[in-house]
Amino acid sequence: MIKSRAAVAFAPNQPLQIVEIDVAPPQAGEVLVRIVATGVCHTDAYTLSGEDSEGVFPVVLGHEGGGIVEAIGEGVTSVKVGDHVIPLYTAECRTCKFCTSGKTNLCSSVRATQGKGVMPDGTSRFSYKGEPIYHYMGCSTFSEYTVLPEVSLAVIPKEAPLEKVCLLGCGVTTGIGAVLNTAKVEEGATVAIFGLGGIGLAAIIGAKMAKASRIIAIDINPAKFEVARELGATDFVNPKDFAKPIQDVIIEMTDGGVDYSFECIGNVQLMRAALECAHKGWGESVIIGVAGAGQEISTRPFQLVTGRVWRGSAFGGVKGRTELPGYVEKAQKGEIPLDTFITHNMPLEDINKAFDLMHEGKSIRTVIHF
Amino acid sequence: MIKSRAAVAFAPNQPLQIVEIDVAPPQAGEVLVRIVATGVCHTDAYTLSGEDSEGVFPVVLGHEGGGIVEAIGEGVTSVKVGDHVIPLYTAECRTCKFCTSGKTNLCSSVRATQGKGVMPDGTSRFSYKGEPIYHYMGCSTFSEYTVLPEVSLAVIPKEAPLEKVCLLGCGVTTGIGAVLNTAKVEEGATVAIFGLGGIGLAAIIGAKMAKASRIIAIDINPAKFEVARELGATDFVNPKDFAKPIQDVIIEMTDGGVDYSFECIGNVQLMRAALECAHKGWGESVIIGVAGAGQEISTRPFQLVTGRVWRGSAFGGVKGRTELPGYVEKAQKGEIPLDTFITHNMPLEDINKAFDLMHEGKSIRTVIHF
Repeated sequence: MIKSRAAVAFAPNQPLQIVEIDVAPPQAGEVLVRIVATGVCHTDAYTLSGEDSEGVFPVVLGHEGGGIVEAIGEGVTSVKVGDHVIPLYTAECRTCKFCTSGKTNLCSSVRATQGKGVMPDGTSRFSYKGEPIYHYMGCSTFSEYTVLPEVSLAVIPKEAPLEKVCLLGCGVTTGIGAVLNTAKVEEGATVAIFGLGGIGLAAIIGAKMAKASRIIAIDINPAKFEVARELGATDFVNPKDFAKPIQDVIIEMTDGGVDYSFECIGNVQLMRAALECAHKGWGESVIIGVAGAGQEISTRPFQLVTGRVWRGSAFGGVKGRTELPGYVEKAQKGEIPLDTFITHNMPLEDINKAFDLMHEGKSIRTVIHF
Repeated sequence: MIKSRAAVAFAPNQPLQIVEIDVAPPQAGEVLVRIVATGVCHTDAYTLSGEDSEGVFPVVLGHEGGGIVEAIGEGVTSVKVGDHVIPLYTAECRTCKFCTSGKTNLCSSVRATQGKGVMPDGTSRFSYKGEPIYHYMGCSTFSEYTVLPEVSLAVIPKEAPLEKVCLLGCGVTTGIGAVLNTAKVEEGATVAIFGLGGIGLAAIIGAKMAKASRIIAIDINPAKFEVARELGATDFVNPKDFAKPIQDVIIEMTDGGVDYSFECIGNVQLMRAALECAHKGWGESVIIGVAGAGQEISTRPFQLVTGRVWRGSAFGGVKGRTELPGYVEKAQKGEIPLDTFITHNMPLEDINKAFDLMHEGKSIRTVIHF
């Protein structure tokens, strides 16, 4: 049992508390990781709000981290002490029906227990004053020390700065991967991106990488347009500037609609708009954002019968252990400008400020340093 | 002006009337066709019901025909007098943005006027007692003589029996094409087909052609299961036999869901069920059925984010002039058993009986002989 500084969510809708928790040693197939830095993502805030139907409390949130392996449990072979790692909320076991299908990154190996906030054996490694604290998304990067299944760790080169590449653990990879892996945007295609948070901006990078001819950035906060332009967006639309539905605006701008659209917010009305602004005959729309519990998407089936395709993407369709090292390499080469995403840096003690900045739309990503 | 026997829908929800109408000669780019036989499809009934927002009256319905070219208008080069043809409600001009995209069969060349019940010049070729009668889906095969744009005709071999291959003008091609062209079902895949009307049965043929390993036929009328079995279905499910939602039944039967599902009815609740019974990570669902005006499909976005894909298909994604001759060839070789679909044959005078049989679920297809 070791002591660890952690930001604990004791109850929904309350500030995180910085306390010293107890972390039990890694069991068979598990790894103890010292987190060096972690991003703060909207999904953490979503769960903290109490709206996440899978949310359990008390819990150590955080899922966008970078760390160093401190100890390994029995039978662990793919990582060793001292390895630099990025925790994966989408594991990759390489043996389940999903991993071996060649069609998806949605590994099922630890999904059931991960969704309940516990390790694969059904118990937690975290406790505070003798009471268990739950894990989160299989990561819990808001604790200096955390325990993960071996299959939930991507080993990355030691040269990569953990306080930057930690962002590849979620938002940046999700946005780029949705464009390259899920939609497979091709050269010359037109693209519309709804929402210019971390994921939307990353989707712009992906669209630029794919050599899209037109990248339409859409947000009700025009302050986001400058960075969108830096990253490669070519057109900028504020839905508040128009009386008509945003899908009609995009359809007119593009003579019939875009080839690909991406919803990067989690708003079910915008998911519909994103689908409906896709071009008849071939337009594809990808849902990346996470909607509130119980919310539903709707459209007329005619939209699909006339050739539009509705998809979704989780972690950008990226298989973490296999593909994430390649993303780190791209970031090292400057092809993924992580610095653009990091608007704020602060110590763990200030983590509630990071949530405030996010809610106020003033940050893209705050990186928390342990 | 020639006289033509026709079944005219003078008003919604009233029996068709067999009358002699006047048919004007084909104008530039148009073709006069003598219809030899025509199927009666649910879409005809849908428009006759008055629920079709594009429906206009009085109108000559019918869109599943086979005929012979009687005369051509100025500038027509791709068909000649005496050619055997199948009218296409999805034209193929080979020059519009859609045709040249290589991504869709939804030609736009005559779409706008076709949707209004008139020829591309904005007028009708049909009249009765001096008053114009509208065209329907660019075909109007319930008239012995009809006029179509040249781009709306597939020329087929003269050896093919028009009173059978007329069914390739809609339902049979739609079902097979949705499986082969739209979903691209691969060998060994599992397939669920919702609704065993003409389109659903044709989808079974498509799934068999694709060498699907399991073809689950779903209908609340178990009388349909025998012909489904003949065509290649391997499993038979009557939703009325279960208390739980049909998607849960299919997911349990298949250890997680099917690789592909097809909605062949036009029921928005079943469209949702078809999507949700598709396998997490890769399952794709194709909407083929036409829903009532204003009806919407819904689901939780989580269904898409976890890897399901929602598509639609119109005329099976088939480019009529280019691909329909190949379908006729397959029918000639016995690979598409059209006889299985033809449960009834009758003269034009009895066409209202054909609608009755369809509504009563007693026919798959009735072929009307002129």
